[in-house]
Amino acid sequence: MNKLLIVGTVAFDAIETPFGKTDKILGGAATYIGLSASFFNVKSAIVSVVGEDFPQEYLDMLSSRGIDISAIEVVKGGKTFFWSGRYHNDLNSRDTLDTQLNVLADFKPQVPESFKDADVVMLGNLHPMVQIGVLDQLTATPKLVVLDTMNFWMDCALAELLQVIKRVDVITVNDEEARQLTGEYSLVKAAAKIQELGPKYVVIKKGEHGALLFNEKKIFFAPALPLEEVFDPTGAGDTFAGGFTGYIAQSENLSFKNMKNAIIYGSNFASFCVEEFGTQRMERLQKEEVTERLQQFKMLTQFDIALEEE
Amino acid sequence: MNKLLIVGTVAFDAIETPFGKTDKILGGAATYIGLSASFFNVKSAIVSVVGEDFPQEYLDMLSSRGIDISAIEVVKGGKTFFWSGRYHNDLNSRDTLDTQLNVLADFKPQVPESFKDADVVMLGNLHPMVQIGVLDQLTATPKLVVLDTMNFWMDCALAELLQVIKRVDVITVNDEEARQLTGEYSLVKAAAKIQELGPKYVVIKKGEHGALLFNEKKIFFAPALPLEEVFDPTGAGDTFAGGFTGYIAQSENLSFKNMKNAIIYGSNFASFCVEEFGTQRMERLQKEEVTERLQQFKMLTQFDIALEEE
Repeated sequence: MNKLLIVGTVAFDAIETPFGKTDKILGGAATYIGLSASFFNVKSAIVSVVGEDFPQEYLDMLSSRGIDISAIEVVKGGKTFFWSGRYHNDLNSRDTLDTQLNVLADFKPQVPESFKDADVVMLGNLHPMVQIGVLDQLTATPKLVVLDTMNFWMDCALAELLQVIKRVDVITVNDEEARQLTGEYSLVKAAAKIQELGPKYVVIKKGEHGALLFNEKKIFFAPALPLEEVFDPTGAGDTFAGGFTGYIAQSENLSFKNMKNAIIYGSNFASFCVEEFGTQRMERLQKEEVTERLQQFKMLTQFDIALEEE
Repeated sequence: MNKLLIVGTVAFDAIETPFGKTDKILGGAATYIGLSASFFNVKSAIVSVVGEDFPQEYLDMLSSRGIDISAIEVVKGGKTFFWSGRYHNDLNSRDTLDTQLNVLADFKPQVPESFKDADVVMLGNLHPMVQIGVLDQLTATPKLVVLDTMNFWMDCALAELLQVIKRVDVITVNDEEARQLTGEYSLVKAAAKIQELGPKYVVIKKGEHGALLFNEKKIFFAPALPLEEVFDPTGAGDTFAGGFTGYIAQSENLSFKNMKNAIIYGSNFASFCVEEFGTQRMERLQKEEVTERLQQFKMLTQFDIALEEE
């Protein structure tokens, strides 16, 4: 079985949407990535850090899904990273109400020995130096390294961010971040510039407007599934990344054709994630539902025009 | 050959985009619809009105593409409808700088005898009472009536708009208009409510984010082709409508599968329209380019996941 190494936050979130609000619930990039990737036939491990206040049941839940949690460090007397945000009415934008780094401030990631030769590495959104710290511990070159990042690091750690970008195969950013990173409004031009920075593949996430995959002159687009109700977008991007990397790790195929499929799986999982608060929907998601929704994605996007019709 | 009846403005536009500005150039919904539909094997006619100031060469251009222009009334001493607008930097929104109705204020559409039994009727954006006036002149029930409209009529002629909406098979609106018309933020819910108003098919145009087709529980999505540069979005929606109705009229097939193809053709033509100012790109577009771009749409959206992979 192929190995997927996941680095990212395991955290508490408090979320407000037009539909309600939560107290501190389970959150964090690595949590969502791990949940989503656990639907594939891969051996995965999360490298992260939590405080002593982090409920054992959350760790048990991740472990019960086959995720190796031995590299989630529990800091004695420490407090878990906490993020709180409020979504606007359109759910496309949000305000951060509170960010408490806590144990994340001094996080020194330790890659488990057994994952230093991981096949696929998913670097969830974190300080670029932490992401680099993980890459430096690997003893074999992974088949694929995927990087997620955000505008925050472009603002305050651009040099370090460019360093890690240079070392990855795939980068995932949203449309605004792609524009900020390159100064190009056109996403086609932005993706071309990002490829010059290192990554052969660029994934641009557009939220409810879907996701684009760029590689040289090739472009693939996966829409978001149109839903009656989007309840809570938190974690959708990470869930997407987990589906993407889980699929790649399982299939061991780096062709563009297979990357397309991985993008569709990412979108598939993300469409579930947003249906309920936090990780709720992902925790009770069944494989059959994923298969059924894959069928919906096909109906949504596939057409059959014979070129002779011209 | 099937008959496509097009009703809409033939006009002057003056356009400002971040890339430049034009003097009065050829514009109007029916112009763009007609140009786009002229790529199909259909007999089309435009019902419209212009002033004495409208250049004969514009009419000759439309005529040379096989469009019956006998029902474009030229009002002696009258001035042609004029619209002027300035696009914002993102090209997704615009300000109207000037609107001069001129001869459009008293427009009484006259459907030519030979088109009173048209197979497909495309009602371009106009006052709903003008659109109804056209439907009232038909002597046979068309296979398909498609309505385009805009928020302006929702604000100032809602009762009349609802009357015409009740009488059409397909409605095309943009996402904001769909929300305004129904009070639903979710496009899935909005499309369901619009179907209750009459149209069996609802097309929601999302500009650079593509277009959705709804029919009962079925949804199809066509992305906009990601372009290096969008130069001028004017007429993109009408060009889309022309491709959609032209394809339907030619193929005489009202299945959902065929509607999907029509949506793809609409998106295909729209992707050319935005590449240059006004009608320039559409006027010199070649069939081979359309076929080539269809191939790009396929590469952009088609994937092949075997369900056994689950």
